Amino acid sequence: MPAAALDVVLFDIDDTLYSTTAFAVDARRNAVAAMVREGLRVTEEEGVKELAEVVAEFASNYDEHLDRLLDRLGPSRWGGRNPAVLIAAGVVAYHQTKEKELRPLPDALALLDALHAAHVRAGIISAGLRVKQAEKLVRLGVLSRLDPSAIFFSDQMGVSKPNPKIYAKACEALRVAPARAMYVGDRPETDVAPALAAGLRTVHYRGAHGRHADRRATPPAHHEVERLTDLLPILRETYGLPV
Amino acid sequence: MPAAALDVVLFDIDDTLYSTTAFAVDARRNAVAAMVREGLRVTEEEGVKELAEVVAEFASNYDEHLDRLLDRLGPSRWGGRNPAVLIAAGVVAYHQTKEKELRPLPDALALLDALHAAHVRAGIISAGLRVKQAEKLVRLGVLSRLDPSAIFFSDQMGVSKPNPKIYAKACEALRVAPARAMYVGDRPETDVAPALAAGLRTVHYRGAHGRHADRRATPPAHHEVERLTDLLPILRETYGLPV
Repeated sequence: MPAAALDVVLFDIDDTLYSTTAFAVDARRNAVAAMVREGLRVTEEEGVKELAEVVAEFASNYDEHLDRLLDRLGPSRWGGRNPAVLIAAGVVAYHQTKEKELRPLPDALALLDALHAAHVRAGIISAGLRVKQAEKLVRLGVLSRLDPSAIFFSDQMGVSKPNPKIYAKACEALRVAPARAMYVGDRPETDVAPALAAGLRTVHYRGAHGRHADRRATPPAHHEVERLTDLLPILRETYGLPV
Repeated sequence: MPAAALDVVLFDIDDTLYSTTAFAVDARRNAVAAMVREGLRVTEEEGVKELAEVVAEFASNYDEHLDRLLDRLGPSRWGGRNPAVLIAAGVVAYHQTKEKELRPLPDALALLDALHAAHVRAGIISAGLRVKQAEKLVRLGVLSRLDPSAIFFSDQMGVSKPNPKIYAKACEALRVAPARAMYVGDRPETDVAPALAAGLRTVHYRGAHGRHADRRATPPAHHEVERLTDLLPILRETYGLPV
């Protein structure tokens, strides 16, 4: 059987190149702990639970989660502190968590390294705010493994997931036929289904969400992997790439 | 001569507790250098000069300085990079500079320590965005030396420098007569003159700006110091404080 041709492998960022879920848990806990050390009168457990509710109720890119946390706890819990000081303590702890813990999953890095060594173009299609998403690529240290012209953020494209157009437009910009592009992501609804609809080869990465990963993509992706390095034999055998 | 009475010493943050000017120079240079490493086609010197112009032309709390830097250099200088990636590289370098270099001036820390040890209330009156200014206090590590109820940001008060009301309102909130409050700041027009007009004891700190510090305050402050620790003998002798 002749190998299918593949010109570019495009990746999701969140919960694919790094564990966004695990990072968010740590960062929020560190933020609450710093606010408590600064005088906020709440147990770390209660604060974390309330903050999780704030994040669920307000948009995830909303930048006043800690303000709303203080609002919902009420001034009697502020310990006589200026609320801006409590918020700032949380913000600094959140940033310090980024600095310390925003690292690529080892398998993601190994796969990007193998693609880079084999001169296979690798890129990004990510939904979110452009600089916020780009900051993740900088902090993950993966930019040197990516084709600079193959980095796409929904915020810059005027179209976002789950619209299949985001995948079609990226291929158009790369001058690659969708059938010769692969997309690797963790979410059936926003990554697999619309990339399939746009005609790309799709990979459902199921390793990021632990037990929740049992959910299968419908329609199914071309390939399903528990670890990103599981893609290496597929890229060799199905696509004939020298990785 | 009986000692004048003093109940609280209030401080400016920028160029008083730390060298804002020196920090900004380093942070901007580091941001430009990171953008150049990421592919921006400009010399570090030209980039720093252009960025200084952006900061001068747009508001200092404007949060898109790096976007405007790329705009003014033009797409031909972006090296085929997604501009969000270049901006993110600069943003990360700017944050890393905060993490590494935002430290209080040794004299400021020594003075705050002496006030704290002597149980003299110390606080802040600062013009700027509440969380941004509060973040500086967190990063400078000075909050444990300050009275939590004596931290005032213009952004929360609805009045800003150089309106004397900002000083009057802070004293009112503290239930301290202005004549028994001292304000320490570096700028004649925004710190000394309006605090004097509000009836506070004033200190013109002239150490932050190097040769530009030759400019005297008009009207003159009650006290003028080159180093913040020069205030210690004044607080002892003129105000009878056990520092």
